Amino acid sequence: MLWVVPVIAALCVGFAFKFKRFVEKADPGTEDMVRVQGYIKEGANAFIKRQYKTLAIFVVILAVLIALAYWGDNEIEWWKMVITYILGATVSGWAGMVGLNVGVTANSPTAWASKQGMPAAFRVSFYGGAVMGLLIAGAGLLCVWAIYWITGEPKVVLGFSFGASTIALFMKAGGGIYTKTADVAADLVGKIEFDLPEDDSRNPAAIADNVGDNVGDIAGMGADLVDSYIASLVATMLLGFSLSTEVLVKYAFASLPLILSAAGLLASLLGIFFVSSKIKDDPGKALNTGTFVAALLYMAISALFVFLLAITIPDINTATYWRNWLAGLFGVGAGLLIGLSTDYFTDDTKKPTQLTAEASQKGHALNILTGFSFGLLSIGPALLGIIVAMTIAYMLGEFYGIGNASVGMLAIIGTIVSNDAFGPITDNSRSLAEQGKLTEEEIAICDHLDSAGNTAKAITKGFALGAGALTVLALLFSYAEDAKEILPTFDVTYNLLRIDVMIGAMIGAMIPPIYSALLIRAVDRNAQKMVGEIRRQFTEHPGILKGTEKADYARCVDIATSGALKDLIVPSILSVGAPLITGVLFGINAVGALLAGSILTGVIFGLLFGNAGGTWDNAKKYIEDGNLGGKGTLAHAAAVTGDTVGDPFKDTAGPSINTLICVEGLTAGMFLVLFAVINGGLGLITPFF
Amino acid sequence: MLWVVPVIAALCVGFAFKFKRFVEKADPGTEDMVRVQGYIKEGANAFIKRQYKTLAIFVVILAVLIALAYWGDNEIEWWKMVITYILGATVSGWAGMVGLNVGVTANSPTAWASKQGMPAAFRVSFYGGAVMGLLIAGAGLLCVWAIYWITGEPKVVLGFSFGASTIALFMKAGGGIYTKTADVAADLVGKIEFDLPEDDSRNPAAIADNVGDNVGDIAGMGADLVDSYIASLVATMLLGFSLSTEVLVKYAFASLPLILSAAGLLASLLGIFFVSSKIKDDPGKALNTGTFVAALLYMAISALFVFLLAITIPDINTATYWRNWLAGLFGVGAGLLIGLSTDYFTDDTKKPTQLTAEASQKGHALNILTGFSFGLLSIGPALLGIIVAMTIAYMLGEFYGIGNASVGMLAIIGTIVSNDAFGPITDNSRSLAEQGKLTEEEIAICDHLDSAGNTAKAITKGFALGAGALTVLALLFSYAEDAKEILPTFDVTYNLLRIDVMIGAMIGAMIPPIYSALLIRAVDRNAQKMVGEIRRQFTEHPGILKGTEKADYARCVDIATSGALKDLIVPSILSVGAPLITGVLFGINAVGALLAGSILTGVIFGLLFGNAGGTWDNAKKYIEDGNLGGKGTLAHAAAVTGDTVGDPFKDTAGPSINTLICVEGLTAGMFLVLFAVINGGLGLITPFF
Repeated sequence: MLWVVPVIAALCVGFAFKFKRFVEKADPGTEDMVRVQGYIKEGANAFIKRQYKTLAIFVVILAVLIALAYWGDNEIEWWKMVITYILGATVSGWAGMVGLNVGVTANSPTAWASKQGMPAAFRVSFYGGAVMGLLIAGAGLLCVWAIYWITGEPKVVLGFSFGASTIALFMKAGGGIYTKTADVAADLVGKIEFDLPEDDSRNPAAIADNVGDNVGDIAGMGADLVDSYIASLVATMLLGFSLSTEVLVKYAFASLPLILSAAGLLASLLGIFFVSSKIKDDPGKALNTGTFVAALLYMAISALFVFLLAITIPDINTATYWRNWLAGLFGVGAGLLIGLSTDYFTDDTKKPTQLTAEASQKGHALNILTGFSFGLLSIGPALLGIIVAMTIAYMLGEFYGIGNASVGMLAIIGTIVSNDAFGPITDNSRSLAEQGKLTEEEIAICDHLDSAGNTAKAITKGFALGAGALTVLALLFSYAEDAKEILPTFDVTYNLLRIDVMIGAMIGAMIPPIYSALLIRAVDRNAQKMVGEIRRQFTEHPGILKGTEKADYARCVDIATSGALKDLIVPSILSVGAPLITGVLFGINAVGALLAGSILTGVIFGLLFGNAGGTWDNAKKYIEDGNLGGKGTLAHAAAVTGDTVGDPFKDTAGPSINTLICVEGLTAGMFLVLFAVINGGLGLITPFF
Repeated sequence: MLWVVPVIAALCVGFAFKFKRFVEKADPGTEDMVRVQGYIKEGANAFIKRQYKTLAIFVVILAVLIALAYWGDNEIEWWKMVITYILGATVSGWAGMVGLNVGVTANSPTAWASKQGMPAAFRVSFYGGAVMGLLIAGAGLLCVWAIYWITGEPKVVLGFSFGASTIALFMKAGGGIYTKTADVAADLVGKIEFDLPEDDSRNPAAIADNVGDNVGDIAGMGADLVDSYIASLVATMLLGFSLSTEVLVKYAFASLPLILSAAGLLASLLGIFFVSSKIKDDPGKALNTGTFVAALLYMAISALFVFLLAITIPDINTATYWRNWLAGLFGVGAGLLIGLSTDYFTDDTKKPTQLTAEASQKGHALNILTGFSFGLLSIGPALLGIIVAMTIAYMLGEFYGIGNASVGMLAIIGTIVSNDAFGPITDNSRSLAEQGKLTEEEIAICDHLDSAGNTAKAITKGFALGAGALTVLALLFSYAEDAKEILPTFDVTYNLLRIDVMIGAMIGAMIPPIYSALLIRAVDRNAQKMVGEIRRQFTEHPGILKGTEKADYARCVDIATSGALKDLIVPSILSVGAPLITGVLFGINAVGALLAGSILTGVIFGLLFGNAGGTWDNAKKYIEDGNLGGKGTLAHAAAVTGDTVGDPFKDTAGPSINTLICVEGLTAGMFLVLFAVINGGLGLITPFF
């Protein structure tokens, strides 16, 4: 029965390449369009290449640390971990690069296809996004299955997951800094000071802004989601393994999450065909319908698979299979619920966004205060959703049930990533349509597609955040089970009445806010630098504004690239270093508490940043749609301030927190063998308490 | 030896009344000044009276709940708890009212005394503030001692502490909403739209703004600090009691924190004399020197007292006394360290504030982003300070040592509250000096005193926050010890690997941000209402702006009063209701984890709000001092936006979080007897897991 996993995964990879060819064959339009597309491609590739160089050093250092940690370990040979780790980094990096390349290839053909109407244009951009979604999820699942099949040991898969996570850490943080540096700077000078329209080609930051969309939302978001996806699979397999000492029962427990993931992947693939065949007029609705269809298909297919699994691998009780299948459905439900709550707090037909828009009439400060306080309030329903899903999943299958909830939530990741990658493609296609001097109706089609991408985003983000939280909960518990196995006499407890545990929890709690601060500072600093550069170009070359002289795009691209690369080093070291050092100093239990502390504040700050940012963004759009006086009023100026503050909140700091806590959890799991040998798992300092 | 406690406490109360008479006898100045002072007094009294009415209902409901919880309890009769609870609320309410009254009496005499020069004016305002500091700390300590002396049972003192806490909850949240409603509205319309100077009497919100300073910083901050003060004492006494079963040893352990508090109170009293005798030119330096002198005196006096205690009550090891004394000193050290870190992040000669000011040149959004990210970064050093103090105190005396660290940190509360209450008195005196048409030099003296108050605040706030965190840690541990005593067979653990504990921690973690959101929303909403009212007055009565017509102050006072009262109900119910309901549903361990979760996010959001607010405030002042182009520039407009956003951050939400987590801790302790009887301490739902 388990053979269904590689078959479906390979099928997805195959379709990814089929869609890739479709996109590459499509007509990219006029010479002008191809030239500008070339700039974007070049910028994106230059960034990714330079990033991978830095990343390579980071991967080598971590590989050495892993080798040292597993040196002489009885259970797992060090080279197995090092190889899977490097494999994880390589496969994930390769899939990200291919997906990104297709993304920056699809923008111009999308614009050109608008000449044949909405469905044609939609298809190009949607297939372009689907490459990333199918390739990254398919390749990930295929590798997880292969490693597990060869070694029979989920712990070795942990190395693969950690490798994918290292990539995600760089992609998400680096991409997030890059995209918002360009966006904030382009808005501050272009829109506010010189009143240029969005994506105006006279703006020297225009290309950097386009590149940023791709490296942030395609490469970054894709890497982040696949990181959670693989981690949740591994954690659940590990939790399944800990439930029994009998080999066949272990295998049965480890098979269920693989089967659920395969079902989800198939559902995503079918969902993609459904969407592309049904598209008529409303692409936003088509995308969201696609998500719901994929979720429904997942329910049906996974039920079938579980039924077959229970027959072919009857080593565990049929009821146990079904209970954990149900836990997975609650995971899907929680993901949708968080998406809906996000929608409430950020939709401009609802109170939070409208009140934020109204407050803008009384100035910049009240816009900030109103949006921020709604961001804080939005923590409530989403966190309650996570609590309920966690509690029910626990009742259904204890920690293993929570693991399956996270697997369920992430099962339709193919759809989620596809929809997400759709956004920047259509966003870029709009700029290119203007470059190619397409007709107004054709540009309107690109516009329409762009806003469809934004609509789909609310649900995507809800999934990403909820999935991140549940995944790290699963990692937290699997870490504890693993510790019990390695040190059978050790008292594994995250009891906050112990001082080592309390120290761990406090350190963990402060990581997400400090990490966010570093990313926001990075955007802030680099955007200020770029603002200076844009002002310089406009002053020294007045022809740029008149359209008689070309703006120097390369300079802005360079500021964004080098800034993002420099500024992701410290946050990256923090996310791996903090659990590592805490474990060495305070031991196994402190690291468990560190993860718990990071989950608590991570989810809270993630929701705050994401939703406050979304509220500000849509409050601005609400005013720009002509409400409350429209453009040119104090309300509009204040709303633009809110939107600019919200940019790094919602697109840099907020989503990066997912990756952060996932990396922390995987670091803990990887280096547990190291912590276990220091004073019997207590670390260097705890014995003195 | 314990008799030294009531003697010193009574001495402080005596001096409070002596200072009160001094202030009341001082010449309040011209008729105009007395009239305006009358408005302020009236507004403050009206607010406090209306607040106490609402509070009375709240107290009665809680008294009934307490009676029900302790009904039939074997250890403590219900009426004892109800009486001490009501006593706590009454004494704390009374002391707050007296202190506030002296505060609003001292403003005008301070202004008038400026005719005799700086030292005379300083003395009036400083004595005015000292009344609050000495009275509230002295009366608190006296009552704690008396209840303990009569009943011999620290648990009964818990009722008193909870009563004081109920008052603090209302005073801090209500006062915080009030003061910032008026301040934000006055700034938005007066300063930004109509370019009126600060405290201009033509501004209809001027009186409300003055009233707000008093109810926020005198009544609110005083109630908050004394709340932590009493709670830390009680928690440490309870922890001491749990260390032994022998009565004399128990008493010895309970005596130490009382003696330390008495030493601190005496040190504060002597410090006040030192400051008032040494004052020459720099009042800000005098206040901060006073704090350091009080801290040094505390070290010496407490050493003497501990020496005597070890001789007179030799039931515990002398070394144990000294170790816990040392833990107390580390508490003081941590308080000073947090104060210094606050100073670094908010001082305009340091990088964070200067970079925030520079970012303002690039617009509103970058001012917000820069200040906010420094607020996030400031979490690091302060929280590390708390971790180090907690760890060392634990090594010195385990949980009891952590309790003594919090007692030590709060020992010189007399000085801290005095310095804090000094602020609004001098702030108000400045407005009154203008009303009384005093000379420019005389107004400059009031100005100078006002800025001295602001300088002293940085350290005060550091103390308040650190003390709040350590106090609730002590409450968290004493709650666990108490639970073990009530249910000897119950497994008291805050192990996050248990699902009930994880649920509790998640609920606890989301309380501080939600609570803050409610307070910020309240300021936001009420300020918008007041902005409307001020605009209305200026439009309908153009004479007001010309100075030919009187502004209608009463309307603004009324908006602030009724707004604050209405909007503190929900947050207050949340802070008591959340631990109560969690305990009933998920049991004793979940409530412990709830407290831990609230401490983690509470400290983090408290630091973020306080320091981001301080940075914005001082960045604005830095520009107003003529840097970066000074007033009238985009930089200044952006800095004013930051300051306005920071107002409810640093003066409403931030400081209220202390009270919130303290109230949560005391609610848990008070209703433990209730949780213990539901399914043997597991709550209604946990047994189903």
